[in-house]
Amino acid sequence: MERAESKKRIEKLSEEILDTIGRGDNPFIKIPIRGSSNVIWNQDKGLLSLGDKTSKRFFINVAHARKFMQTLLVAAFSKQLLDEDVHASLREAYYSLKHTIKNSKETTFEEQGESDSTFVDLEVALDILRDELHINADRRGVAAGGVIIEDRGDEINWSKLGSGGWAIPGNVENIKFKDINADYMLVVEKNATFDRLHEDKFWKKHNCILIGTQGQAARGIRRLIHKLNAQFKLPVYAFTDSDPYGWYIYSVIKIGSMNLAHVSSKLGTPATQFLGLTISDIYHYELENAIIRAKDVDLKRAHDLLKYPWFKHKLWETEIKMMIKKKVKAEQEALAQKHLKFVSETYLPEKIENKEFLP
Amino acid sequence: MERAESKKRIEKLSEEILDTIGRGDNPFIKIPIRGSSNVIWNQDKGLLSLGDKTSKRFFINVAHARKFMQTLLVAAFSKQLLDEDVHASLREAYYSLKHTIKNSKETTFEEQGESDSTFVDLEVALDILRDELHINADRRGVAAGGVIIEDRGDEINWSKLGSGGWAIPGNVENIKFKDINADYMLVVEKNATFDRLHEDKFWKKHNCILIGTQGQAARGIRRLIHKLNAQFKLPVYAFTDSDPYGWYIYSVIKIGSMNLAHVSSKLGTPATQFLGLTISDIYHYELENAIIRAKDVDLKRAHDLLKYPWFKHKLWETEIKMMIKKKVKAEQEALAQKHLKFVSETYLPEKIENKEFLP
Repeated sequence: MERAESKKRIEKLSEEILDTIGRGDNPFIKIPIRGSSNVIWNQDKGLLSLGDKTSKRFFINVAHARKFMQTLLVAAFSKQLLDEDVHASLREAYYSLKHTIKNSKETTFEEQGESDSTFVDLEVALDILRDELHINADRRGVAAGGVIIEDRGDEINWSKLGSGGWAIPGNVENIKFKDINADYMLVVEKNATFDRLHEDKFWKKHNCILIGTQGQAARGIRRLIHKLNAQFKLPVYAFTDSDPYGWYIYSVIKIGSMNLAHVSSKLGTPATQFLGLTISDIYHYELENAIIRAKDVDLKRAHDLLKYPWFKHKLWETEIKMMIKKKVKAEQEALAQKHLKFVSETYLPEKIENKEFLP
Repeated sequence: MERAESKKRIEKLSEEILDTIGRGDNPFIKIPIRGSSNVIWNQDKGLLSLGDKTSKRFFINVAHARKFMQTLLVAAFSKQLLDEDVHASLREAYYSLKHTIKNSKETTFEEQGESDSTFVDLEVALDILRDELHINADRRGVAAGGVIIEDRGDEINWSKLGSGGWAIPGNVENIKFKDINADYMLVVEKNATFDRLHEDKFWKKHNCILIGTQGQAARGIRRLIHKLNAQFKLPVYAFTDSDPYGWYIYSVIKIGSMNLAHVSSKLGTPATQFLGLTISDIYHYELENAIIRAKDVDLKRAHDLLKYPWFKHKLWETEIKMMIKKKVKAEQEALAQKHLKFVSETYLPEKIENKEFLP
């Protein structure tokens, strides 16, 4: 979305409020409800999304007035960012917005949680990514492989960045893809696995893009995967630890998350497939010596996964139940037990060649 | 250090053991003691270092035999990495090394902590960085600015990487600096601050190198700062939150850390100066509205800092005591309260121009 369009949406919101005031009515902002009561699983799209429930935030209402004021302050701040074409983190925004209201002891925002959630309100109300309001998420993650992008006037070739790679920023809205020379994206959970595959030139030998998430995929990473998939129809294979946390990381990349359900259609990538590590892999590749005993918290999480509709597939249920029954899990690095390059020379090529994916 | 030299040191260790066995003696490995009893503050060098105490690890000794075996396994593994010119993470190393010893129920390593500490033993025993043994640390951090490096055959210009930056790898031993166009290094704690300065083109306007540590500086970052300072005499300015944790991050970059005292001379950069945020800054720049109340844990840490010889400077004592007395702290982003670009347009230029550094 262009900057002008973001501005237009804020202006429209403001004009509606002014019109209401002009008519002598109580001004309000209509905001879709984000709570779990309004989060639905959209089977057709393969994404979490918000239902139809909305709430109105009125100015003349003791329970709403403060939040109403905060919403307008946040909208004004975003408008200013857009006008000046600068970006801010949520924390900078908080400090910028926090002040004591003239002739009172009232502060605009007491703590960052208040401004953070107000930005999300605005994101929902305007049906716009807060990234497009020039609010940056925290940055994490690294990329390498057959991609040339243009960003801030620089042309950046992801295949020419040595052992380091391109540090993925928190906000990828202004990145333009100039040239893609890749058959798929391989998204890996651990830095160590990224480094292994990077050193072994996996992305070069197998003509792919390698993305390291460093744990849970940050917003910038998810948006980047989404864009690459949407624009170039690149398949996405996720490779995580063999445990419920790794599988959750996969599901967030694919279908979005409960608390960001309102932006799943922009951050999620339903085409994502799960490559591994599965519990079956542990036995198929004889990694029994590298097994980790599952803890109670792992087993509890596994039981939770079984309840989610997006894990209700025979293949997933088999894996999760096997994990619960055997009380085991394993890390990506467990594959090093065979030999260091086993993951890049045998495991991944076999899985991809045979299309051994979980849905 | 060249790969050949690393190999030579492992071979020398092995030959000495073989010689001892050849003479019919009990083979041993001499390892400097790493415990706090042997860590000393080297005032002249401005670094933590190890004292003279060493211990001998014997093969024929019930208490030593297992650790002796582990040390040789770890040395053999590193030798193999060097021979094959590949690198491994500590976790991959653990999985590679873990197995059950033939005709017994004894395992080589029960948990990763055992192999991790054995690699450190080897690092100390050989007086060599474990990075030079091809064991990679976890990666974190990002760089931008006037530097061109060569890495894995790629030429990488840190000033041409858009909003992302160069993702700093865990191991920077093989990086060659081709061209440096910078007057100093600015090392910042927070991603948000890195992004602010990066968007405001601070490194371009002020001809410097910008390094984001994302919290505590990872080993690769510290080694990179050390190398840039050692090779090009570039000053280093550290910019952290105004709290004991931020000041500790600074001290680790400068003088090293207690538990890695044996490698301080290779990871530490005593020339580092502390730019801010100071407690005085909070009042000088009228950031009272952005103050955070210090918690008990902050105050305890502040009292700890006062005991360290490297904080025994009048300027530091004034700051730390002011923090304790007023029970306050502040974040880098607090400067956004003035205005978003205040940090890049006023605060940093003023501090650097006036050389307002803490030692």
